[in-house]
Amino acid sequence: MAGEQKNHFTMGIVDDLTGHSLPEEAAPDTAPTDMIQCKFWGLGGDGTVGTNKNSIKIIGDHTDKHIQAYFQYDSKKTGGITISHLRFGDSPIKSSYYINKADFVACHNSAYLNKYDMISDVKPGGTFLLDCQWTDAELDAHLPASVKSYIANNNVKFYTINATQLAINLGNAKVKNTVLQSAFFTLAKILPAEEANGYMKYMATKSYLKKGQAIVDLNHAAIDAGKDALHEVAVPESWKDAGKTAPAAKLEGKRADLMSFVNDVVVPVGAMKGDSLAVSTFAKYADGTFPQGSAAYEKRGVAVTVPQWNPEHCIQCNNCAFVCPHACIRPFAMTEEEAAGAPEVTKFAAKPVLKTNYKFTMSVSPLDCMGCTLCVKACPVNKNEKLGTALEMKPIATQLDQQAAYDYAVNNVSEKSELVATTIKGSQFKQPLLEYSGSCAGCAETSYARLITQLFGERMYISNATGCSSIWGGSAPATPYTVNNATGRGPAWANSLFEDNAEHGLGMYVGQKAIRDKLIGYVKELREGCKSEEKAAVIDNYLNTLNDGKANEAATKALVAMLEACDCENPLKAKILAEKSYLSKKAVWIFGGDGWAYDIGFGGLDHVLASGEDVNVMVFDTEVYSNTGGQASKASNIGQVAQFAAAGKAIGKKNLAEIAMSYGYVYVAQIAMGADMNQTLKAIAEAEAYPGPSIIIGYAPCEMHSIKGGMANCQEEMKKAVEAGYWQMFRYNPALKAEGKNPFTLDSKEPTASYQDFINGEARYTRLAQQFPERAKELFAKAEATAKAKFERLKKLVEFYNV
Amino acid sequence: MAGEQKNHFTMGIVDDLTGHSLPEEAAPDTAPTDMIQCKFWGLGGDGTVGTNKNSIKIIGDHTDKHIQAYFQYDSKKTGGITISHLRFGDSPIKSSYYINKADFVACHNSAYLNKYDMISDVKPGGTFLLDCQWTDAELDAHLPASVKSYIANNNVKFYTINATQLAINLGNAKVKNTVLQSAFFTLAKILPAEEANGYMKYMATKSYLKKGQAIVDLNHAAIDAGKDALHEVAVPESWKDAGKTAPAAKLEGKRADLMSFVNDVVVPVGAMKGDSLAVSTFAKYADGTFPQGSAAYEKRGVAVTVPQWNPEHCIQCNNCAFVCPHACIRPFAMTEEEAAGAPEVTKFAAKPVLKTNYKFTMSVSPLDCMGCTLCVKACPVNKNEKLGTALEMKPIATQLDQQAAYDYAVNNVSEKSELVATTIKGSQFKQPLLEYSGSCAGCAETSYARLITQLFGERMYISNATGCSSIWGGSAPATPYTVNNATGRGPAWANSLFEDNAEHGLGMYVGQKAIRDKLIGYVKELREGCKSEEKAAVIDNYLNTLNDGKANEAATKALVAMLEACDCENPLKAKILAEKSYLSKKAVWIFGGDGWAYDIGFGGLDHVLASGEDVNVMVFDTEVYSNTGGQASKASNIGQVAQFAAAGKAIGKKNLAEIAMSYGYVYVAQIAMGADMNQTLKAIAEAEAYPGPSIIIGYAPCEMHSIKGGMANCQEEMKKAVEAGYWQMFRYNPALKAEGKNPFTLDSKEPTASYQDFINGEARYTRLAQQFPERAKELFAKAEATAKAKFERLKKLVEFYNV
Repeated sequence: MAGEQKNHFTMGIVDDLTGHSLPEEAAPDTAPTDMIQCKFWGLGGDGTVGTNKNSIKIIGDHTDKHIQAYFQYDSKKTGGITISHLRFGDSPIKSSYYINKADFVACHNSAYLNKYDMISDVKPGGTFLLDCQWTDAELDAHLPASVKSYIANNNVKFYTINATQLAINLGNAKVKNTVLQSAFFTLAKILPAEEANGYMKYMATKSYLKKGQAIVDLNHAAIDAGKDALHEVAVPESWKDAGKTAPAAKLEGKRADLMSFVNDVVVPVGAMKGDSLAVSTFAKYADGTFPQGSAAYEKRGVAVTVPQWNPEHCIQCNNCAFVCPHACIRPFAMTEEEAAGAPEVTKFAAKPVLKTNYKFTMSVSPLDCMGCTLCVKACPVNKNEKLGTALEMKPIATQLDQQAAYDYAVNNVSEKSELVATTIKGSQFKQPLLEYSGSCAGCAETSYARLITQLFGERMYISNATGCSSIWGGSAPATPYTVNNATGRGPAWANSLFEDNAEHGLGMYVGQKAIRDKLIGYVKELREGCKSEEKAAVIDNYLNTLNDGKANEAATKALVAMLEACDCENPLKAKILAEKSYLSKKAVWIFGGDGWAYDIGFGGLDHVLASGEDVNVMVFDTEVYSNTGGQASKASNIGQVAQFAAAGKAIGKKNLAEIAMSYGYVYVAQIAMGADMNQTLKAIAEAEAYPGPSIIIGYAPCEMHSIKGGMANCQEEMKKAVEAGYWQMFRYNPALKAEGKNPFTLDSKEPTASYQDFINGEARYTRLAQQFPERAKELFAKAEATAKAKFERLKKLVEFYNV
Repeated sequence: MAGEQKNHFTMGIVDDLTGHSLPEEAAPDTAPTDMIQCKFWGLGGDGTVGTNKNSIKIIGDHTDKHIQAYFQYDSKKTGGITISHLRFGDSPIKSSYYINKADFVACHNSAYLNKYDMISDVKPGGTFLLDCQWTDAELDAHLPASVKSYIANNNVKFYTINATQLAINLGNAKVKNTVLQSAFFTLAKILPAEEANGYMKYMATKSYLKKGQAIVDLNHAAIDAGKDALHEVAVPESWKDAGKTAPAAKLEGKRADLMSFVNDVVVPVGAMKGDSLAVSTFAKYADGTFPQGSAAYEKRGVAVTVPQWNPEHCIQCNNCAFVCPHACIRPFAMTEEEAAGAPEVTKFAAKPVLKTNYKFTMSVSPLDCMGCTLCVKACPVNKNEKLGTALEMKPIATQLDQQAAYDYAVNNVSEKSELVATTIKGSQFKQPLLEYSGSCAGCAETSYARLITQLFGERMYISNATGCSSIWGGSAPATPYTVNNATGRGPAWANSLFEDNAEHGLGMYVGQKAIRDKLIGYVKELREGCKSEEKAAVIDNYLNTLNDGKANEAATKALVAMLEACDCENPLKAKILAEKSYLSKKAVWIFGGDGWAYDIGFGGLDHVLASGEDVNVMVFDTEVYSNTGGQASKASNIGQVAQFAAAGKAIGKKNLAEIAMSYGYVYVAQIAMGADMNQTLKAIAEAEAYPGPSIIIGYAPCEMHSIKGGMANCQEEMKKAVEAGYWQMFRYNPALKAEGKNPFTLDSKEPTASYQDFINGEARYTRLAQQFPERAKELFAKAEATAKAKFERLKKLVEFYNV
């Protein structure tokens, strides 16, 4: 079987700049005539790839056929697309290109028919299988014109199946793919029907026996159900004249540079047509920069349920927005005028925003939501039955009308600066500058990152380590980091290598600092010759706030306005204005995961922290190298199982925080948003304010942890982790030491919950108990003792640092 | 001027294995006819290179000539050879090869005449200048036959000069090279004599004015003295028939593999003939391994004075041997028989070795000694005037007779195992397995390393980071790590890269462990079937001592002897004996400097310490990247000046020890041999005994520190550093924690001496005060405060770790 590889998108192979032309279609089809080619379009995580791997094993093991399988992915962490390319034949298979003359194409998600051109991959006379809930009459209404005419004019055998409903009927929507696998074997006829049925059941038993007989039986039932559930569509003669589907209209927006990028690159790549883009399309981006904010135009609509806001119960705390990983639930405060212009579907709270006359709305973007439910769970109203339900999950179809309300608010309602504050509530009145990223539903990393962009995004540089955060932060060509609507400014983001991220971020800092220091010199010179008291005050205000990010932002604005208005001939003025974007204090952040910070990039991280320079490091600590599919890192805890550490890690978690504290001049914090939102906010604000190196280690529960109940419980899991003494929160602020105070604050309380109960709620631990019960017992006891000792040590550190 | 580069030795360019042949002589001499080529042979550190750089600048700046200079070095840290290749001409110079058809050759050290073939580089009719104190009659007696016949038969103009005596007469032996520079200008006639004299004086003023007018005047006097001090030798007709110098006899020794390496490679490379070695010479060493112990055959004889042992005053404490960097002063305990066989010049103490009948001698190897005087300064007798002088420095010529005594003892006197102990005295009765390395005279690093080889050398693996320790540890082809005379075993040493040394060492450990674990499995299997009580006891003793290095060494010996003697047919026996060298517990050490441990290799070091594996790390902390000529490292202290940190480091020393302690399961110690020999010994022994990762950070004063009085004060400087609170000694032993004891021991006492006085004794600090007095004041105050705070912190750590 061919290797599996995650593909991001592939660049065009038509080089119209150099004149070399190699269109995709020219790829030689060396397929022997006996070869059967099959292609499956599925939703990432829906099981399509898993069952296809299963199918290929059955055919490889039980027939004389040669086989080949290749799985093509986009780079989205959840809700992306997967395309399986399977080939079978009597001769060895050496095809090294995507299948585009398929004997069989299956579409496992009917919504894809409008997004992707998959029908033209079916060769004339081939078979097309569509999973849908439509009757033949509904098919006629729902199928795009191009699909209908291709089927009819190419003699395509067209089948439908309602696998989703069949699976639900069997009692578990997840077995949909087993149903579809069975249907595939019926249609493909590679093995006699009975034989195929037997092998599928054998493989299902093998795969699921450890999950219990019930799951095995369920899958066997799905196999039986799938084989006979096919419906062959009698293709109407009229489809021959269905013509072509009209091309989608160009997307529109305010920023011309962004919109040309969206229409020229993002849309075709999103339609899996990236391979056919001409090289010249990328000429504008040859320096490697992409415009910010293109993710907003993906509007993927992959959630099954999305939150509905019930204004009558809302207390306007903004907790929901505070935890949202994808920034698709946002509070807005509208003036009367803004409210008047809002679409009718817009809902408003009865009470205005506290102490103002602004009308309050909590807007939800159904098409951007991933359906994680974190907002619903974070709602304090929901937690008290007596108060009613302020937010609840509803099927996406029932909420699509809210998209207009959301789009209006995002594009037309101004930020109310008097409401913005470094509080849970106040921070959410600031536009998030990380939105709709490619992260998993419920991802903790993005909740942290989104919050940071709300606090400093307009004056922020981000250097990103390779890892999940570089994938969701830049799922090329979608760019989720964006700009503020009013100022047009947002984080400058770059990803260098896994191993040099800290150094790369330090370079960003030092580079801008060199320019800024030069400009500060000019401003000082200007001040010396300044005779106007009024102007001198503006200059002084700038010079007196150099190290205060927020104050300097306003002071710089005033300075630039003053200089631009001034009609003097001082050559310093032009010099300063030529590089005015470097005048204000920047917030340089270095983002990365535990694999980077604890292991591969640690040498550089240590060097950068030691440098004493004013950079801020945010470690998204999932403890498990999430992006590479799970390995033990030095951040992993005792007893944790990972893909490449099946026997559980035997050694404790590295004490990265204390290592950083050993310098004495590094700000250090450990946080867990779901356990203490205020502590999280405080740490981030203190880190940025501290005029030296800072590092924040944020606990980030992750898909790879297999939390009981899934990522819907991500924020809750953080709370549990702290209560069980699994994770500790604290802050070490050297600025306090300079004031003669104790720099170390332990923010966690004595653990109140059971450590063992906590780790029993995560399969990354329970897996060890299943496979090596004795070892698990020993390691888990050791883990608990280590955690207890760590807390005792932290309490002693309070004493140790006491002055 | 061409770049300067440190050359190790160059491999042969005659490839007689492949048939490709490119002898050195074939290098095209593209020299334009107007080009003058000059070659100077000097002793590293004697100033030859410095004055030649000076000369080339004078000619480049004040004539129309094109110039080229290239400086060729061996890899010895002190007392190596330097060859300057200078070219001048009217056309651009593009010669890219060593000079071998010189117009002028100068030999600045008459001893070189017997070691190197330099005369054949003089082209017929060229000039040869020899610095010596010989009369013409003496010349005839001292010059090798080949030199005489070459001079006479090639019409070489031959001059002598007694520059050494002239310089001494002027009041400072160091200006010898200024005398020789002046002589060169007189002979070379590139500039008119008066002009050359003026420029030399101008350059001397420029170079030395900051050292005071007296030094300027001294150099001007040397310039005047040199120009007229030449003596042209009337070459006797008889020299034409002097014939060839007889080739040196092959060196002899017990180990055939070593001796062929010494004679085939070490000797020719030592004679600077490495370039002419054939590729086939190296075929035996194609896997990169060189035999251990070749440095013992260099017998460089570079010291001016060496210690003389006065047995009547000696108290047999062995302190002298304990500090010796080059292992060339060693105590021996001889039986009556051994003593009877010793050369007559052997001196013995009146008293036998305590509690034995062994006769005691302290042997000195004059030809291996570097003349550092550390032994004399370490002698407790010398410190008390009333006790007389047990050791004193004497001109080497007066001590050469002791070489025979030393060689006899080293080669013929057995180790007395009952005297060997982990004490200062006892450790020195063990043969050092690091001897005569290429390190600087007085080097602290080698004192530590030598001691470690005495404790564990026979079962030791060393992975060495790039840096000084890789140069003195493997000045190819000289190998200073050697084997024990009796067992034939010694450290297996390898140097990978600067950045991966810790990982490389971990690999060494894991590799041998995998083999050993397999063998242990065989031994256990053997034990199960063993019916002899006696044999079972031998096996049990092996199995019960697996983690105890010393005990397991003896147990393994017994096990192997038992197995070899056994006539059973058990196939396990053969399997075990086939890999018997892996049976015993090994001591894996990872050596490196501060540049490696604190900076470039730190990421890997951290990873290896975190691994929990049983490796031992020794950091030679010179605080200054010694090998690359001095940079600020994270080990550097506040206020320290280095070649690439001229304004003094502003940030404190990294707390590497505490970082390692943060793991809890890493043994950590900071030591300073000269401050506390016992603490050093204790830490090294504990580190090796601890069955997990260990790291020792050893303070290592260095040439680059420019200590007042030079490296003769190296060990004293460590004592001062501790007394002034500049350096702290402590040990953190996780094994104690497991016993319920406080793992942390602070071995330093409250500082009693002035911090400022201490740093004022090292030019790496005083340089800052000279150049930036204000900044120095500020940084030095900060440095002192930081050191005080560090000691307070350590005291608090004693409390913190108290149980």
